[in-house]
Amino acid sequence: MALIVQKYGGTSMGTIDRIKNVAKRVKRWHDNGHQIVVVVSAMSGETNRLIDLAQQISRTPNPREYDQMVSTGEQVAMSLLAMAIIEQGIEARSFTGGQVAILTDDTHNKARIEDIDDAKIRAELAAGRVVVVAGFQGITSEGNITTLGRGGSDTTGVALAAALGADECQIYTDVDGVYTTDPRVTSKARKLDKITFEEMLEMASLGSKVLQIRSVEFAGKYQVPLRVLSSFDDNQDGSFDDNFRQNVGTLITVDEGDTMEQPVISGIAFNRDEAKIVVRGVPDRPGVASAILTPISDAHIEIDMILQNLSTDGNTDFSFTVNRPDFDKALAILANIKADIEAKEIHGDDDVVKVSLVGVGMRSHAGVASKMFQVLAENNINIQMISTSEIKISVLIKEQYLDKAVKSLHTAFGLDRTEGESKIAGL
Amino acid sequence: MALIVQKYGGTSMGTIDRIKNVAKRVKRWHDNGHQIVVVVSAMSGETNRLIDLAQQISRTPNPREYDQMVSTGEQVAMSLLAMAIIEQGIEARSFTGGQVAILTDDTHNKARIEDIDDAKIRAELAAGRVVVVAGFQGITSEGNITTLGRGGSDTTGVALAAALGADECQIYTDVDGVYTTDPRVTSKARKLDKITFEEMLEMASLGSKVLQIRSVEFAGKYQVPLRVLSSFDDNQDGSFDDNFRQNVGTLITVDEGDTMEQPVISGIAFNRDEAKIVVRGVPDRPGVASAILTPISDAHIEIDMILQNLSTDGNTDFSFTVNRPDFDKALAILANIKADIEAKEIHGDDDVVKVSLVGVGMRSHAGVASKMFQVLAENNINIQMISTSEIKISVLIKEQYLDKAVKSLHTAFGLDRTEGESKIAGL
Repeated sequence: MALIVQKYGGTSMGTIDRIKNVAKRVKRWHDNGHQIVVVVSAMSGETNRLIDLAQQISRTPNPREYDQMVSTGEQVAMSLLAMAIIEQGIEARSFTGGQVAILTDDTHNKARIEDIDDAKIRAELAAGRVVVVAGFQGITSEGNITTLGRGGSDTTGVALAAALGADECQIYTDVDGVYTTDPRVTSKARKLDKITFEEMLEMASLGSKVLQIRSVEFAGKYQVPLRVLSSFDDNQDGSFDDNFRQNVGTLITVDEGDTMEQPVISGIAFNRDEAKIVVRGVPDRPGVASAILTPISDAHIEIDMILQNLSTDGNTDFSFTVNRPDFDKALAILANIKADIEAKEIHGDDDVVKVSLVGVGMRSHAGVASKMFQVLAENNINIQMISTSEIKISVLIKEQYLDKAVKSLHTAFGLDRTEGESKIAGL
Repeated sequence: MALIVQKYGGTSMGTIDRIKNVAKRVKRWHDNGHQIVVVVSAMSGETNRLIDLAQQISRTPNPREYDQMVSTGEQVAMSLLAMAIIEQGIEARSFTGGQVAILTDDTHNKARIEDIDDAKIRAELAAGRVVVVAGFQGITSEGNITTLGRGGSDTTGVALAAALGADECQIYTDVDGVYTTDPRVTSKARKLDKITFEEMLEMASLGSKVLQIRSVEFAGKYQVPLRVLSSFDDNQDGSFDDNFRQNVGTLITVDEGDTMEQPVISGIAFNRDEAKIVVRGVPDRPGVASAILTPISDAHIEIDMILQNLSTDGNTDFSFTVNRPDFDKALAILANIKADIEAKEIHGDDDVVKVSLVGVGMRSHAGVASKMFQVLAENNINIQMISTSEIKISVLIKEQYLDKAVKSLHTAFGLDRTEGESKIAGL
């Protein structure tokens, strides 16, 4: 008997028929003798409907009231699912974040979980019931409803799994796992059976939208085995056996260190949401980087890659990247301070993308970077900026070369699906 | 400074613009120095939308889960109103039934309020805040959400007013008060400035749909002054002065016993939802009434008027009325037991209505019944059944005579609006 936390997102809960399908899957797991806790998001579209109501009243709705209201989306979904499970002949009860209780700090709209009282859930499970919990929400010690911010239902799932010491936290979504890269870019993309928390974090932060970053961090911190799998695959029979554990979806877990079997690179992530800004000919003296970047970060613009050229004639060039929606704003800020920082020229380019190789195997293998640059050179792709971390190498290139870069790197690093492997259904 | 509980129904909260209007009215009251607690229903249509979702999952949704879900309608409305009040520059906070806490028994879908912890509300009011509370809901001692049944928001308002010792509980609705009779039947109907709890109970139970019966009982029991008034009259300036207290809406209050000024009849109620069943020629012996009515009430069919004829030749006729939706079912039950009760004939008539005179003044005035029968006779209206209580006389007549009966009785008992009285706006 395993204790499994299952999380279903808005798409999986999108219609009454889909909710009934979720109930049937829960039944299969329950019938196999497992204890099941289900975390749900609001039905897709519902949260936006509620936000729209609030914004008709105020462009900046009171944060406490906003949370009181928007949390009802998950509350409706949880009770509908509990009804549907009961309709399958299985006892079930739904609980809001407050009823469970998921205690958070009082940062409305993006609260952080501080504690979970797991006694109630354990009692319900011991009584043979399925427990359905509203994702994305909690309650303060004063009894105010809070929300964890968008995508926070993943975090609820992981936090519950950690509190309960669950055998696994299963994140059901509309894809059947984590892929070596986006299958829309190369048909040779392969589903990964396993990936480490660190790799998943890099993949997620680089634009793979399968999981919310905070939930992966949380799962890594508490070492909760996390599995991404499809809510549209109805063939799963609810067995938590070796076949399931090795093959279904993608298991995100701790690095077991057995590098023999570990590929050097686990996946290729990319992010189209990049823009580059170049500040040319600033005097190369201490404080120049700060003089350029402080007004940018004061405007709450996030900076990603940063490059400072070697000095020539006491002058230097300074480049950095921002998210595309912040591009115009960043340029305007720099135009304002151009004279102060004595820059000769400021220009930008929002026609760039970031491509990254990710893999824990990189740590023990030299030469990943040189092989990457060689592959790109062979394909006449110019590298504009480079940044590295222990398990990641990123390059900034022209957007037009994105597909070519991903495909050729995918093949060169041995990630391609082989003839024998069947393409996973659902993509 | 007065402490006022205001309750707004689904129509008053029907659109974002109407919610903004409610916020403006609350502001006027607050600006006049009064402490305001607002109870809200769900935006009109929202509860039905939620029930429809539940019924797509189950024809008999689990009662606990149903309450968890349907209670979100008021939760959304309360937070939207709190946002709108805050947008008016006034501090406000919304609370669910659980947050307040309104403790109920655990009869899901039609729970009864057992206790209200008023400390939280008093603290918020003392801090100068407007308190917005979700109507229609409560929480059990175990933390399960309950609902009070349809229309229960009125009960929430009255219960809060009782717990807080409020100066008045104002029920804002889409009519501007309680009328002597339905203005759609006679244009001479007059708004009542005052009515007693007992009269209001009779009016309500006889089909005047302005207030929920339970809330009137509750208000009577705890002697909470209850006022029905229009949420569409924007001329009220939020003053709780003598003019307001004597003239605005209809005040439902205790019988002050000053019969000198009291009219004999306060109003004429009627109910179209009636059907008559006649069981002819049953042996007139003890137990016959029980033999006829027990299977009817076992089928949860409510019986209203009952008439047993004087016996002739050891046989008698037995008549009673039921709600029209139960008519066919009741006839079918009687057909089944016709042989057992040795009835000669069973027939029915669902083309009947009940017309009732209501007034506490009736107690001290003889002759109301005879005058009523005389007026009906003069209009050639045949009376099929009669029932009376201390402050009410009801007759059953053919539906086609309803308008004629109400109009002639309205005039005969001096209820008509005089030339001088202006017709109240909004009807």
